[in-house]
Amino acid sequence: MKIDIVGKGKVGTHLSQRFEKQGADLRHIDSRSLKGLRMDADLILIAVTDTAIEEVARMICDISGSESLRAVVAHVSGSTPIEKLACCMKRGVFYPFQSFSKGAEIDYSKVPLLLEADSKDSMDVLQKAAEFLGGRAIEADGEQRRGVHLAGVFGCNFLNEMLVSAFSILKEKHLPVDLIYPLVELTVAKALEQGPGNVRTGPAVRGDSPTIDLHLKSLADNPHQQLVYRAITSLIQHNSNK
Amino acid sequence: MKIDIVGKGKVGTHLSQRFEKQGADLRHIDSRSLKGLRMDADLILIAVTDTAIEEVARMICDISGSESLRAVVAHVSGSTPIEKLACCMKRGVFYPFQSFSKGAEIDYSKVPLLLEADSKDSMDVLQKAAEFLGGRAIEADGEQRRGVHLAGVFGCNFLNEMLVSAFSILKEKHLPVDLIYPLVELTVAKALEQGPGNVRTGPAVRGDSPTIDLHLKSLADNPHQQLVYRAITSLIQHNSNK
Repeated sequence: MKIDIVGKGKVGTHLSQRFEKQGADLRHIDSRSLKGLRMDADLILIAVTDTAIEEVARMICDISGSESLRAVVAHVSGSTPIEKLACCMKRGVFYPFQSFSKGAEIDYSKVPLLLEADSKDSMDVLQKAAEFLGGRAIEADGEQRRGVHLAGVFGCNFLNEMLVSAFSILKEKHLPVDLIYPLVELTVAKALEQGPGNVRTGPAVRGDSPTIDLHLKSLADNPHQQLVYRAITSLIQHNSNK
Repeated sequence: MKIDIVGKGKVGTHLSQRFEKQGADLRHIDSRSLKGLRMDADLILIAVTDTAIEEVARMICDISGSESLRAVVAHVSGSTPIEKLACCMKRGVFYPFQSFSKGAEIDYSKVPLLLEADSKDSMDVLQKAAEFLGGRAIEADGEQRRGVHLAGVFGCNFLNEMLVSAFSILKEKHLPVDLIYPLVELTVAKALEQGPGNVRTGPAVRGDSPTIDLHLKSLADNPHQQLVYRAITSLIQHNSNK
């Protein structure tokens, strides 16, 4: 399979390395020059910042003239609509729902790949690429993909910030942060096994107002953290009273 | 070691089973009757609801008359001060920082046990019990312990609710919830390995306002969730601009 990946950031680098390892005929292309881009590739993946996707797509179309562009052009963004690639004849989205960072190993067999395409033919190409990568292909339209992206903000970014808060409280009290590791690990394991809505514990779901008041008082010096405490406590009580 | 555990809830049951398995001379006592309680035990652990601790301690003192009560009396609560046991001659706190649920296996070697005592002698008894249980003993005063408890609310209860939100968004979009498992697992592994403050990703830390606005709009039907989104986004931006 002939694949060109445009963009040398984290996602572009990870995907390039993986496709190459899996035996693809791969080129990793600089997004500013587009030097070496092949119009007859099976797939061109645009792996650049969301706000630059449309411009890169236009550059590709300008270079090729839409006639000779035989490749499916797809971006890898969760929150960007497929319409940003409107100038390309065959277009798609190839969104790997995982957090990529430098040097970190990714288990691709577990990476969901959310696919959207303008046609059956383009989808076939994306499916083939997903198989090549070894991920779990899931067809999803733009609205679904935006939902997945938002779910990721809660399940990754916001979850991570809960740990930032927990760590900072422990440090403030001169306690080792690793004393919370077993609790965090068990919490996540239980939530994924039994469903997070079935394993709630703590003062909010118990309606334990004296403890909640005590906690809010001890967060008085950190209004941002206090507001988060209030907001999530309300959410838990709202959700669990359903 | 002679240990009586008062209270047949989740924590009391888990600790009783573990102490017994480890070869302690254990009695598991009903908190209403206190039938069978031994005044000459090494340790009496009060494992009841926070608000009932003081009353149970008084009942123990009344039965014994403070003269003949030779046991160290300790509660297992994160947010309750040791002073609630004031009527007991020797007192302590033995707070296992883990989430206990029915039937779930606990790896005790990883459970932090936060210990506080009225005297060196009482602390020695708690330390011995911690060793017996096989946990990680950490001496912590009341303020530290309340900090740990609050950190647990963020690192367990609130973290869990982030997953509730993520799952509900995926379900709303008719997508399988397990597609977020790999992201969650990697997020937690990275946060614990590298420190959550060093691995932030996502629209909030990037200052990506168009995506944040899009997300807030899509949460318009759920004001509780929307408020949480706003509050955590502010917290991330506040924390990462430090």
